Amino acid sequence: MKLHGLSSIAGQPGTVGGTTFRAVNPAKLESLETVFHEASELEVDQAMNTSTAAFEQWRVCPGEQRALFLEAIAEEIEALGESLLACAHAETGLPMPRLLGERARTCGQLRLFATVAREGSWVDARIDSALPQRQPLPRPDLRRCLIPLGPVVVFGSSNFPLAFSVAGGDTASAFAAGCTVVVKAHRAHPGTSELVGSAVNRAVASCGLPPGIFSYIHGNGAVVGMAMARHPATSAVAFTGSHAAGRALYDAASARPRPIPVFAEMSSLNPVFLLPGALAECGEKLAQGLLASCTLGIGQFCTKPGLVFMLRSADADAFLQSLGALVRSAPSGVMLTSGIRTAFTEHRDAIIRVPGVRLLASAEATPDALGAQIQPSVAVTTAHDFLATPTLATEAFGPFALVVMAESADEILACAAALEGQLTATIHGNSADLTSARTLLAHLEQRAGRIVINAFPTGVEVCHAMNHGGPYPATTDTRYTSVGTAAMLRFARPVCYQDMPDDLLPPALQNANPLTIRRLLNGESTPGEG
Amino acid sequence: MKLHGLSSIAGQPGTVGGTTFRAVNPAKLESLETVFHEASELEVDQAMNTSTAAFEQWRVCPGEQRALFLEAIAEEIEALGESLLACAHAETGLPMPRLLGERARTCGQLRLFATVAREGSWVDARIDSALPQRQPLPRPDLRRCLIPLGPVVVFGSSNFPLAFSVAGGDTASAFAAGCTVVVKAHRAHPGTSELVGSAVNRAVASCGLPPGIFSYIHGNGAVVGMAMARHPATSAVAFTGSHAAGRALYDAASARPRPIPVFAEMSSLNPVFLLPGALAECGEKLAQGLLASCTLGIGQFCTKPGLVFMLRSADADAFLQSLGALVRSAPSGVMLTSGIRTAFTEHRDAIIRVPGVRLLASAEATPDALGAQIQPSVAVTTAHDFLATPTLATEAFGPFALVVMAESADEILACAAALEGQLTATIHGNSADLTSARTLLAHLEQRAGRIVINAFPTGVEVCHAMNHGGPYPATTDTRYTSVGTAAMLRFARPVCYQDMPDDLLPPALQNANPLTIRRLLNGESTPGEG
Repeated sequence: MKLHGLSSIAGQPGTVGGTTFRAVNPAKLESLETVFHEASELEVDQAMNTSTAAFEQWRVCPGEQRALFLEAIAEEIEALGESLLACAHAETGLPMPRLLGERARTCGQLRLFATVAREGSWVDARIDSALPQRQPLPRPDLRRCLIPLGPVVVFGSSNFPLAFSVAGGDTASAFAAGCTVVVKAHRAHPGTSELVGSAVNRAVASCGLPPGIFSYIHGNGAVVGMAMARHPATSAVAFTGSHAAGRALYDAASARPRPIPVFAEMSSLNPVFLLPGALAECGEKLAQGLLASCTLGIGQFCTKPGLVFMLRSADADAFLQSLGALVRSAPSGVMLTSGIRTAFTEHRDAIIRVPGVRLLASAEATPDALGAQIQPSVAVTTAHDFLATPTLATEAFGPFALVVMAESADEILACAAALEGQLTATIHGNSADLTSARTLLAHLEQRAGRIVINAFPTGVEVCHAMNHGGPYPATTDTRYTSVGTAAMLRFARPVCYQDMPDDLLPPALQNANPLTIRRLLNGESTPGEG
Repeated sequence: MKLHGLSSIAGQPGTVGGTTFRAVNPAKLESLETVFHEASELEVDQAMNTSTAAFEQWRVCPGEQRALFLEAIAEEIEALGESLLACAHAETGLPMPRLLGERARTCGQLRLFATVAREGSWVDARIDSALPQRQPLPRPDLRRCLIPLGPVVVFGSSNFPLAFSVAGGDTASAFAAGCTVVVKAHRAHPGTSELVGSAVNRAVASCGLPPGIFSYIHGNGAVVGMAMARHPATSAVAFTGSHAAGRALYDAASARPRPIPVFAEMSSLNPVFLLPGALAECGEKLAQGLLASCTLGIGQFCTKPGLVFMLRSADADAFLQSLGALVRSAPSGVMLTSGIRTAFTEHRDAIIRVPGVRLLASAEATPDALGAQIQPSVAVTTAHDFLATPTLATEAFGPFALVVMAESADEILACAAALEGQLTATIHGNSADLTSARTLLAHLEQRAGRIVINAFPTGVEVCHAMNHGGPYPATTDTRYTSVGTAAMLRFARPVCYQDMPDDLLPPALQNANPLTIRRLLNGESTPGEG
């Protein structure tokens, strides 16, 4: 499939003329063929302005129409077939089975958001009926529901070229909520972005929607991305990536004359606590599970476990021995970009260089001649040193974990209490361990968005009960998830209608309940029936 | 009742030593007797740290216990009897009937939040059951609910000495959500704050709760208030007041190493659109209603209508004539503080001085000898001048409104489209007017948090469906309300539990549903039964 290398603004190809760039095959360290053109400031302005105009129509489209559109996007993505997978493979180095799974997840989440938009109860409709006889003052008729925020800027992420990029979870949830979307395509997979973007454009056309509801923009994050976040028409930003970039976006958005929310999912160490009973009963299995979670996607998941805590014991020593052996025989892998590879080795080496940190093991696979591959590794330190050294609580985004050995249960609790915000926190324990882990749990609950028991944190289920978010610096807004159906709530705000004639109310609030949604009527939940 | 004039930190009186101040009776322009002591930075630190320690206990208290505490606060406030009303009257100049009503609202909202905390469904519990047989991967058991954020800093507001101060809506909703509270008492009513604070302290004691769950601090907003917003232990800020102060808090909170949400309710012009049919049918009644709304509490409500739009016509002229006559005979009144009085006259005069603005009428009541009273007034301009002059869309917080005359319906729409974010927007129209007002409604819905039809915006009902918030600059976070039961959502965040043993789950998520709350089970709403 021939790529044009341009941005797409309301369905129209952008212009040629600015800085150009090419994607790099990270496995071969070779530039790929297509030349991509960075968008101009004028194009950013056009994309945001057409997005604003299209929002007027899209925001009041019924849930059914939103659902059909989301389903059409999924179909168009599937229709791209092998060409999409091949392009993503060349641009990211991710293996085909992973990309197949990610495409399934991408289409699955588009369809899940379609069901929620179609069903409609997510708008949290509330009706308090008029009380004309109330003393000392009558109560008016008051009705409230969520309405869409406005044009949303979505930043594609490097590590999910499909599931968190052009038509990923952020885009799907924004569309489902009734917002229009302008994507800043990630520079590491611009061809994948163009292919998926063309799929979205075809879905827009086949559904007869205004083309301005979707645009994607190529360009540098610090210039083009910032211009998008600062544009007066932008009403929210969704981002997955580094802490530095996420914080820069948050700072820019907060400093606007009209500040806007930024949902940045940034960094997480995903601590894992291996309690004594679990180590005694299944240390070998834990070592296998930990290494698998730590090296899945060559460590490039935001939920990769980067810190492991345990109490010093013979079982802990045996665990370390098993883990070391497994690490030594672990395969090496290609990282997504040279930037990620460089940042990873720098952060990893900074940790290993800290006095008191000992490299437990490194994969012994022969390095590839090109130097494109990275070897997994694990280091060990003491709780005492961990508590004394902030560097040891920084993220190395890649296949590395630091095991922290504590001398007492109190030291483990002190480590838990010292943690910053996390996406996840995991405990492995037998039932006796868990019964006595309530204090540890309380610490973790206040520092993480998801608590995992006797499993590993990688693999984020897309469902209603998922929470993928957490206290800062895991995300900039701990009140929201970026995965799962609650992600739609990021892109909506409540409006109250007082004494509004029934036919002027949004359908969600009309007397006859034409959408047959759940509503709160005078404080009582009413089922989704007319 | 003798006042001590000190802050109260975890139930203990603060120290003497720093800057002192006295409240002023705004009707008599006389300082009141009690000397109040500003808190030191050390006291702020103590209050926040004891709040953090108490949060560990309070956050897991059952809803029933939270409800009993909120109800005990209401009872203790009522038990203060006349002394509270007399003190508030002396400090604010608000008339006794208003203070009686405000006390009823304050206690009413404490009790309403108690019912929501007791019922428990507000935590939005969601359960997705394990699917161990699912292919290609099993699904774990995932459960999610809202948990409290942490210590909340509440800024008392000048214009609601009871309902939005020490034990007002922000405090009540934070407690109901399971957060601890540290109040920055407003300097205009420190005695009222001490009395209400003592009531809260008595409720803390009678309920056997840790004293650290509540403190209040006297001091200057720019120094002591900022120190509270910047304190590392603070997890959220609630504020009602001026745009300058709200924005300063927002900027400080966003610039923290760990940014926190600021819910600042700041400024609103609350535009009112009088459509031709309504003007023809009931112009005189509209003039009465508008003036009443505009001068309620001598114009010191955040929902005071400050802008009125209408199409030029004979009916519009007649309306203006009626309004002018009513304004001339309107009573003058005492404003809350000399600072508010000065700011009001400055902003009002800046508007009136704009070329093309004409003073329609000013109340003719003889000014009081002291100069403490303010006369209501109304000015008129054209839509053309309104659209050309940003000053005309600034808030004069007090008894003043600007009537904007348009030459065409399109000009009215242009004015609506030019509005910044508002707490409310109001339309008066007969059924023909409203049927043709869909475009106007669409503009207003995107710029306001509450749409009022054929009524006036002052008077904010405390109920489930209320939304008191709106796009910036009405508030800093348009996704949340500060009035009504949804206000609790400001102070909570989701956590997901994966494969957690039933007895370690929060009761809201346990299999037996011991709280008998509504939950979303595999995407289906289930009623509040065990």
